[in-house]
Amino acid sequence: MLDTSTRVIFDEDHDAFRDTVRKVVAGLDTDRHEREGMVEREAWLAAGAAGMLCPGVPEAYGGPGLDFVWNAIVGEEVSYAGSAAGWSLQSDIVADYLIAYGSEEQKRRWLPGMVSGEVITAIAMTEPGAGSDLQGMKTMARADGNGWRLSGSKTYITNGQMADLVIVCARSTEEGGARGISLFLVESGDEGFSRGRNLNKIGLHGNDTSELFFDEVKLPADRLLGQENGGFAMLMNQLPQERLSIAVQCQAAAQRAFDLAVEFTKERKAFGKSVFDFQNTRFTLADLKARLQVGWAHIDWAIQRHVRGKLTPAEASAAKLWHSETQFQLCDAALQLHGGAGYMNEYPIARLWRDARVTRIYGGTSEIMKELVAREI
Amino acid sequence: MLDTSTRVIFDEDHDAFRDTVRKVVAGLDTDRHEREGMVEREAWLAAGAAGMLCPGVPEAYGGPGLDFVWNAIVGEEVSYAGSAAGWSLQSDIVADYLIAYGSEEQKRRWLPGMVSGEVITAIAMTEPGAGSDLQGMKTMARADGNGWRLSGSKTYITNGQMADLVIVCARSTEEGGARGISLFLVESGDEGFSRGRNLNKIGLHGNDTSELFFDEVKLPADRLLGQENGGFAMLMNQLPQERLSIAVQCQAAAQRAFDLAVEFTKERKAFGKSVFDFQNTRFTLADLKARLQVGWAHIDWAIQRHVRGKLTPAEASAAKLWHSETQFQLCDAALQLHGGAGYMNEYPIARLWRDARVTRIYGGTSEIMKELVAREI
Amino acid sequence: MLDTSTRVIFDEDHDAFRDTVRKVVAGLDTDRHEREGMVEREAWLAAGAAGMLCPGVPEAYGGPGLDFVWNAIVGEEVSYAGSAAGWSLQSDIVADYLIAYGSEEQKRRWLPGMVSGEVITAIAMTEPGAGSDLQGMKTMARADGNGWRLSGSKTYITNGQMADLVIVCARSTEEGGARGISLFLVESGDEGFSRGRNLNKIGLHGNDTSELFFDEVKLPADRLLGQENGGFAMLMNQLPQERLSIAVQCQAAAQRAFDLAVEFTKERKAFGKSVFDFQNTRFTLADLKARLQVGWAHIDWAIQRHVRGKLTPAEASAAKLWHSETQFQLCDAALQLHGGAGYMNEYPIARLWRDARVTRIYGGTSEIMKELVAREI
Amino acid sequence: MLDTSTRVIFDEDHDAFRDTVRKVVAGLDTDRHEREGMVEREAWLAAGAAGMLCPGVPEAYGGPGLDFVWNAIVGEEVSYAGSAAGWSLQSDIVADYLIAYGSEEQKRRWLPGMVSGEVITAIAMTEPGAGSDLQGMKTMARADGNGWRLSGSKTYITNGQMADLVIVCARSTEEGGARGISLFLVESGDEGFSRGRNLNKIGLHGNDTSELFFDEVKLPADRLLGQENGGFAMLMNQLPQERLSIAVQCQAAAQRAFDLAVEFTKERKAFGKSVFDFQNTRFTLADLKARLQVGWAHIDWAIQRHVRGKLTPAEASAAKLWHSETQFQLCDAALQLHGGAGYMNEYPIARLWRDARVTRIYGGTSEIMKELVAREI
Repeated sequence: MLDTSTRVIFDEDHDAFRDTVRKVVAGLDTDRHEREGMVEREAWLAAGAAGMLCPGVPEAYGGPGLDFVWNAIVGEEVSYAGSAAGWSLQSDIVADYLIAYGSEEQKRRWLPGMVSGEVITAIAMTEPGAGSDLQGMKTMARADGNGWRLSGSKTYITNGQMADLVIVCARSTEEGGARGISLFLVESGDEGFSRGRNLNKIGLHGNDTSELFFDEVKLPADRLLGQENGGFAMLMNQLPQERLSIAVQCQAAAQRAFDLAVEFTKERKAFGKSVFDFQNTRFTLADLKARLQVGWAHIDWAIQRHVRGKLTPAEASAAKLWHSETQFQLCDAALQLHGGAGYMNEYPIARLWRDARVTRIYGGTSEIMKELVAREI
Repeated sequence: MLDTSTRVIFDEDHDAFRDTVRKVVAGLDTDRHEREGMVEREAWLAAGAAGMLCPGVPEAYGGPGLDFVWNAIVGEEVSYAGSAAGWSLQSDIVADYLIAYGSEEQKRRWLPGMVSGEVITAIAMTEPGAGSDLQGMKTMARADGNGWRLSGSKTYITNGQMADLVIVCARSTEEGGARGISLFLVESGDEGFSRGRNLNKIGLHGNDTSELFFDEVKLPADRLLGQENGGFAMLMNQLPQERLSIAVQCQAAAQRAFDLAVEFTKERKAFGKSVFDFQNTRFTLADLKARLQVGWAHIDWAIQRHVRGKLTPAEASAAKLWHSETQFQLCDAALQLHGGAGYMNEYPIARLWRDARVTRIYGGTSEIMKELVAREI
Repeated sequence: MLDTSTRVIFDEDHDAFRDTVRKVVAGLDTDRHEREGMVEREAWLAAGAAGMLCPGVPEAYGGPGLDFVWNAIVGEEVSYAGSAAGWSLQSDIVADYLIAYGSEEQKRRWLPGMVSGEVITAIAMTEPGAGSDLQGMKTMARADGNGWRLSGSKTYITNGQMADLVIVCARSTEEGGARGISLFLVESGDEGFSRGRNLNKIGLHGNDTSELFFDEVKLPADRLLGQENGGFAMLMNQLPQERLSIAVQCQAAAQRAFDLAVEFTKERKAFGKSVFDFQNTRFTLADLKARLQVGWAHIDWAIQRHVRGKLTPAEASAAKLWHSETQFQLCDAALQLHGGAGYMNEYPIARLWRDARVTRIYGGTSEIMKELVAREI
Repeated sequence: MLDTSTRVIFDEDHDAFRDTVRKVVAGLDTDRHEREGMVEREAWLAAGAAGMLCPGVPEAYGGPGLDFVWNAIVGEEVSYAGSAAGWSLQSDIVADYLIAYGSEEQKRRWLPGMVSGEVITAIAMTEPGAGSDLQGMKTMARADGNGWRLSGSKTYITNGQMADLVIVCARSTEEGGARGISLFLVESGDEGFSRGRNLNKIGLHGNDTSELFFDEVKLPADRLLGQENGGFAMLMNQLPQERLSIAVQCQAAAQRAFDLAVEFTKERKAFGKSVFDFQNTRFTLADLKARLQVGWAHIDWAIQRHVRGKLTPAEASAAKLWHSETQFQLCDAALQLHGGAGYMNEYPIARLWRDARVTRIYGGTSEIMKELVAREI
């Protein structure tokens, strides 16, 4: 169980909520998710029923209207459990776009279902061959009557198979570089919107990740989210929370890897004593534990700073950079301490390790993070 | 194609053989192997027909009687191709046990088929829960008439599903610690010998890896390989070649990862130029290239030293340690340079990266290698 | 100037105090300290006059009776300035021994002068050839009348040349291992107490570090500090603050190295642009900045936890381990960004780098820290 | 003593020469060199008398006319001894410029003295504020009658205080970028040529390193070395040997650091056993030993390749990059194993560690090496 005794940002209400979250998470059938490549809708509904989805949604739209501390609790527990459920994407990222930029009508239409789990969402930015480069974006929304015609394709889209609603980032003028970008709401069933296969990834098998195709998808005017050509500013505004969200999950997963390694090495015997009792094991674990201690202090600092509206994009990028790099180092060392067992998918460390590899890449690679941090130096 | 222009141990005959090997390797259906979890027997026969299996087997037993340089050529090319075919295990390890310790009859019975690919072999040392610790070995061969009764289980056995012949390491006296160990030849079909499922691993999906079970398997006297209770010395004698064999494969796989990253970054555009043209990419690749240069010099030195009978166990362990650690660092950096594509199994770097994780573990973990190197300091 | 705008533990009084500290620190003649191998007494008195020494000493003994946050402010500023002044040792370590274990008379005699800077102190634990191993301690205090006779030698003693008072750790019974240790107050001028030369170190040239010799030094009964044979428990109790003190200084020095590298690379031109504008420079600095951000969050967490009496020995050890390792990595990278200038002692980065090398060693090596962290896993 | 038993490029003559070199090196008073900041002329003469200087100089000019293997032997032994004598600069770099590009008269005038040690030389490329950037070079030679007027300044010049002859790299046309550079021979005593103080460096105290000033130094026509405006090509041609020379020295110094750590940890006791017997010590040393094994194989490969005229600039740069980075990692780990003693300059590891820091910087920084390696990918 994730030890929170040294944390400084939680009160009793938070702790009670964490208990609830743990119960739901304990019921997840992670092996099934791995097999099926996604988390079944029933699990989404259970999460919604437990108040785990979109805690930031105001009461007017069916949510509890809480701050990011509550999102973090869910992110930590799901990640610590080794689940690949794409809830944080919906709660920490998509919901915030709608809360911040949605029209009253858009909010009423989508937010209640996102809170309850009846609506699954995704956000589509990355394109085949373009990666994080907004300037190189090719997906295009052309004005068409009162609305738009959307064409292009996106890839590596989390929740891509299941999503009922996708926020699609597209170029909305021919010129303008990164400044000519708008966000659109595309719904499951929109004509011309189709999905590729569930991508075969190194890890995160429990999460559906897909290519999405838009072939002259006709979008009425009310599918525009926020300001026309205002996409770049919206993306920039949302990035701190997106990156903090990932950082939180990285840290929790790293803690789990550590806890598994401690447990395994204390049980496993070699050369007449427990593997834990070898100095190399103890020193390795001590080094990892120091990094976890430092990491948790930073997570609490960053969450608190974000809740107070002070976390800068550069700080959030630094957080994502450090926690994702640290996560992998910890998972890799923890796997090694398992010896041959670590290479077997039946041991949870193997899955944690495979899953960990993506966090240095998605949500902006470590290289992009460095670029963003450097800009503020 | 693996560049050998800076190598110093090959002559024209070697180069011609390498060309032959490349043709066979080019015909491998690696995707099929990944799907099926093993390499089909036809591919083994093709390798045998091309002279790629067991080059060290003397002519008297159907082989060409060549030195380890020839094994290395095969190991390099198979590994560079990203194939998980378990040929090096047969050629570099199992064959040598039979050549060195087999009776005339044993050699005649098994070696020709190992050369032709009709016989697939494995060697079974590791036990569930015991890892590399020979002292903790529980598999037991009890004297029974002229022969033996073998009971116990082994795990993580490469070629375990397909093997026609398994060299099994077992305790042959109640006392004696590591000194009371013997080697036995167990055949497919021996009563009481059964196999578990093909293990679900992080990578090396193209290679079958299994648990093996021995339930009072009756072995006639001629199934003993080498001296009774002489297993420990035999294992120690064979380890240098086993570890060098792994080191060679690590180096070739690392080279492949590098070559893939160069190719990918030169093709992929971002922010208006090729990814390769970013200083971070160039510096990263330069660092990797330096390590490859150093690594190939060492591989040639080690192979030559081994061929001359001078490579010590500690040196071979150091080679395995360094090359396996370096391989993973290279594969990991190369994957990162692929961005999101690197996480997709359809890109060969993803498989190389997953496959690479095992080399720090199998054939003795890095920790065991350090132990063995340290003993000679 | 050390940026504290993202810190969370300081109020306005702290900030005002920091301004005072900065003025005193700005007046330090660090070059003179380097040349002379120590900080002159006038500087100690100036620090005392500014309230920078021993903020934890209660008002009854001439101090302000403040918590460790105030110690940390001094430690940060002195370290950020690149000064080797041994004030933190006196304020954070020695004073606390007297406050916690001193008799009323001992406190009255020594604490006021420690606060004013008139009394310089040291603590002597390490012995030649024994390092951190209390069990191997050879310095012996034998009962002699009402008092003791102290014999032995100590080494690597900070403030060793200048100290007016030294807390000496000695074995006080023949048996008992680490449990048979007591602490004694030895004064400058005690017969039989002599000092070796000021040791020639890689760095920290502004700080006197010495061997101390005790040749049948006669100590009256009132020179015993705390319980007879109670030294081990006292040492254990004080270690968290000692290690936190070092961690704080490591972090501030690392920040300085970073700030110097930013300044240098922005000014220095190469190949027609500033060195800062190369992607390698920016990525390197971004990576360092992320670690600093994480580090400051942890420092604040640890200070606050210590002030609340909750920081465990293992946590303090983890802090010392991480911050000292991180400090050196940062200083080394920052030096490299200076190119040839970085190797010249006239550039402050050269001194910071040399000074940084000791923090992984003194106050318990990184290896000892790992040992202590591991014990609590 | 440097163990060469696993090396593959030496014959009996080489071994006999190495014995001679060892005797001379054993007579060096390194402490004196550290104190005085340079190696006295008597030591240069002794080296010359032993045939240790400039082995590549043809017999016609007083040398033995040998290949680089002989240079390497001297470089290894001097570096292994921890001496900062600047002989390799003279033998491996300066002499080769004269041999390759000098006129018959220039060769006759200078080479015999360089072989005997009567003439000490330097090469001056780096300028204050410009580093490795030839394009930014400001030192200028203006045509003046038959000859030239040289003005400018250079810095970080090895052997700068003692040099009788300096090859100075200067711009010889106003235009032309890196292509308008020529090399000039400046002699001690030339009017307008002066030297700054011996620079105060982190390490390499036994080697004089200086700023050099050229104030309208009048140079006759015969002071031009090689082609006018041909400096760039000459520099490029010589770089492989220069970088290989440094790589060889890095490797030998790293080996020494390792040997010192082994010796120290086997002697030093802690917690009742030798420090060597702790698993952390053994694992650390094993890791270092593996890197040394790999490094020596590479050094032999690179020397042999260079002797055969095949070592490319990119390969030499990769060698310098890897060996200098590895050297520091080894020295740093070896120092740490010394505990507090490692920080004391009286222990040779402290000096090795300080000296090691420069090799990632001089002769082209690691960043420049990466740039050069990347160009050939």
